[in-house]
Amino acid sequence: MKNIAILGSTGSIGTQALEVIEANPALFQVSVLTAQSNVDLLIAQALKFSPKIVVIGDESKYQILKAALKITSIEVKAGIEALVEVVVLPELETVLTALVGFAGLKPTIAAIKAGKHIALANKETLVVAGELITALAKQYNVNILPVDSEHSAIFQCLTGEINPIEKIYLTASGGPFRGKNIEFLSEVTKQQALRHPNWVMGAKITIDSASLMNKGLEVIEAKWLFNLDVKQIDVIVHPQSIIHSIVQFEDGSMKAQMGLPDMKLPIQYALAYPNRIKNDLKRFNFLDYPSLTFEQADMKTFRNLALAFVALEKAGNMPCIVNAANEVVVAEFLNERIGFLQMSEVIETCMAKLDFMKTPSFEDYFETDKQTRIFAKQLVTNI
Amino acid sequence: MKNIAILGSTGSIGTQALEVIEANPALFQVSVLTAQSNVDLLIAQALKFSPKIVVIGDESKYQILKAALKITSIEVKAGIEALVEVVVLPELETVLTALVGFAGLKPTIAAIKAGKHIALANKETLVVAGELITALAKQYNVNILPVDSEHSAIFQCLTGEINPIEKIYLTASGGPFRGKNIEFLSEVTKQQALRHPNWVMGAKITIDSASLMNKGLEVIEAKWLFNLDVKQIDVIVHPQSIIHSIVQFEDGSMKAQMGLPDMKLPIQYALAYPNRIKNDLKRFNFLDYPSLTFEQADMKTFRNLALAFVALEKAGNMPCIVNAANEVVVAEFLNERIGFLQMSEVIETCMAKLDFMKTPSFEDYFETDKQTRIFAKQLVTNI
Repeated sequence: MKNIAILGSTGSIGTQALEVIEANPALFQVSVLTAQSNVDLLIAQALKFSPKIVVIGDESKYQILKAALKITSIEVKAGIEALVEVVVLPELETVLTALVGFAGLKPTIAAIKAGKHIALANKETLVVAGELITALAKQYNVNILPVDSEHSAIFQCLTGEINPIEKIYLTASGGPFRGKNIEFLSEVTKQQALRHPNWVMGAKITIDSASLMNKGLEVIEAKWLFNLDVKQIDVIVHPQSIIHSIVQFEDGSMKAQMGLPDMKLPIQYALAYPNRIKNDLKRFNFLDYPSLTFEQADMKTFRNLALAFVALEKAGNMPCIVNAANEVVVAEFLNERIGFLQMSEVIETCMAKLDFMKTPSFEDYFETDKQTRIFAKQLVTNI
Repeated sequence: MKNIAILGSTGSIGTQALEVIEANPALFQVSVLTAQSNVDLLIAQALKFSPKIVVIGDESKYQILKAALKITSIEVKAGIEALVEVVVLPELETVLTALVGFAGLKPTIAAIKAGKHIALANKETLVVAGELITALAKQYNVNILPVDSEHSAIFQCLTGEINPIEKIYLTASGGPFRGKNIEFLSEVTKQQALRHPNWVMGAKITIDSASLMNKGLEVIEAKWLFNLDVKQIDVIVHPQSIIHSIVQFEDGSMKAQMGLPDMKLPIQYALAYPNRIKNDLKRFNFLDYPSLTFEQADMKTFRNLALAFVALEKAGNMPCIVNAANEVVVAEFLNERIGFLQMSEVIETCMAKLDFMKTPSFEDYFETDKQTRIFAKQLVTNI
């Protein structure tokens, strides 16, 4: 029986993780649930799963949560700082970090230092501070188990392999605007961008998928997860999202992990690793997909992906700058204050103007994140 | 340094194995080379690789071989019975069984009993006596390392996996006659059948590929190699031969092994297992294959595949009957004595008429093989 903490339990990954846990009561038990603002769903989840502790990020909703759970023995906390307290609970084995953005960094570090395995759905943590996080995980002997479907694919392909990686291919669906040109992109709406062809996900990652920034962040995430050089990472557009990613070994042999696009599979794999749980998820049938297609990613039109490669090449705090600027512009795009293409423009200006540090300290990441957000918001205001 | 015996060194697999060995002198040393009849090539190979022993199956060529190697210290033997003597050489670690057909059975058994790992390119051994061979391998604690690209693919995907298989998909190119109908097949020539679209292989396996019997034999081989029920094995036609086969686990996740079709890769993997050898074989590029396609195998037109499934379901000596009948009809087709479709007819008649045994002994297999060949040849004579 594994005791699990879910940071971000009301989001897309969080709710699917709870479905996996509900389906496997003999394997998992929920000890901690946290949410940023969806207090109603958090209350419902808490009543259903009886965790030891729940945390609501938005402190203004503490009283609602507290009142609703009064009849239970569940401990109630509020505020983002509480996250670092709850991930160290002694009985916890695995912390699923399914919260969005930079906010995942601090609790992830706290969990690693407490010896908890990390089921990582918060890719921004590795994007911002991958070097630090992976070193820490090594030091504290904890697994970082990727939940992103692409990284889970690579991770599954590497299971039991004793041989070095030559190269990896991260597959990308191409998002809803695959094949479109700059003119088209200059006019797209939030509604269009939120219509992902294959995956059902939260709003932020769906916009990131439409702009290919999600793939860019995944490239950086892969670098740290699998200890690769940027030249060992390639992106290939595969519109059907059946092959989730590919590893090529030094003998030229490639292993791919594939299946219907369903996030429950990588969630389950991360939670149950190294075991696979028998389930009744719909199986892939080749005859339903007579053709699996592949094409080059269009980095000229979708500049975010190119920017992410540049940031990874530069290293230091540059991925942190890209991530913070991106979090700002995605929020502003979702608020319909800037256009689709302006997201890349703001990110690029941030990369050019903010102070570059080759070897940032932990505190430097927080300062870079803060300064970048301020600067990016100014840029948006001036548009 | 691994000492290797190559049974069938002058064939397609044998010569490619020697290229792998030549490219990796620090890893491999050739101790035994054997050929059925190509004495000139065997002499050239012996002079180049200086094995301890060479064997020529065709005893009429013994003197030629002996004379050519007189100046060396290489021991020279002749006759098929010598194979069982040379595979037990103490220094041998791995025996590559790259000879064709039922002839591989006896030396494979002898090698296993002597504790040698088997790099298995002689699929007929497992087809005929898979239950016996796999039990023996377990008893003597030796690895059976598949060299067939499909089984190597499955084997690679299973490396390090602790979870049970739900299903496997063996991919099939479909051969040169994919999409053709019975009328077309009734007219095809030996030359047409020998023109395989993707793989360069020996004549027998190329004909088997054209008739889909090769895939049928592979289904039976897979059953024994991976301890599967017939219902866990599916065949999917994939004309590009890039995905070499797929494993599906009980969580619905699938792993595929892929790459350009080049037998050197599975040969190398079997010889160096569990290590992969860095090489400069041409790498697969997705952009050269913008579409990987899949279709159902046409078992109505290509009846051999259906017959193999029937044989596997029946079990006992039925796969042995199919294999022996097939060896006869392929030889007769190559001699242009029967037509393409008549191959299936003879095999089916043999399956119906020969004595079925549910639990054959080792000797029964030899008797079944002998009786089937006699009967199949009679059938051919009467056509």
